Amino acid sequence: MNEQPANLTQKLELIVEHWRPRVVAQVDDYYVKLVKFQGEFVWHEHDEQDELFLVLDGEFTIKMRDGDVHLGKGELFVVPRGVEHCPAAAEEASVLLLERRDTDQTGGVESALRAESQEWI
Amino acid sequence: MNEQPANLTQKLELIVEHWRPRVVAQVDDYYVKLVKFQGEFVWHEHDEQDELFLVLDGEFTIKMRDGDVHLGKGELFVVPRGVEHCPAAAEEASVLLLERRDTDQTGGVESALRAESQEWI
Repeated sequence: MNEQPANLTQKLELIVEHWRPRVVAQVDDYYVKLVKFQGEFVWHEHDEQDELFLVLDGEFTIKMRDGDVHLGKGELFVVPRGVEHCPAAAEEASVLLLERRDTDQTGGVESALRAESQEWI
Repeated sequence: MNEQPANLTQKLELIVEHWRPRVVAQVDDYYVKLVKFQGEFVWHEHDEQDELFLVLDGEFTIKMRDGDVHLGKGELFVVPRGVEHCPAAAEEASVLLLERRDTDQTGGVESALRAESQEWI
């Protein structure tokens, strides 16, 4: 008997807190996570890992030093390794992330918003 | 100036052929691909790589030797490495795939459905 598929809508309903990603799947050494954004995160970068954002609901902006990128529902963007960025959402946005399992959420930057662990949902 | 986000709905409108995945993003050594399924693919496995399927539109079944998994829109499933599987869709389904860049679509199985190259869209 195999596992059942993860229903992203149902998983998102369980997420209340902002900026606290939850793991929904593992692919090799990568985690697929769901997260809700609202407000502004912290400027940070990941030196060794690209990071993918896919908007499931709402919209948000990835602030970057050489130009912001705005993403609406169904839009996908990869922040390349080493590029400083800061996600910001005027209203709540639901986002799917893909990143390596060992990726630190803030790239080592101290922040009250930094999630301490990799929790599955 | 950064690249613009990939709009998955717009990309899908460009895809006509079934079983021919198109790359829309790269994350480290992985490709995110869009593909339209209709009918049945070939039984195959990937010895060294997990493979993620996320349904963007429609529904389909991943046949596996120890139990099929049916996925509807917004549902996600990872076929673990080494697990023989065969995607099948009664009607057209639009699917996002995540797999390592060097993943062979049919795991080496000869098939007329096997795409020869890794095309971006």
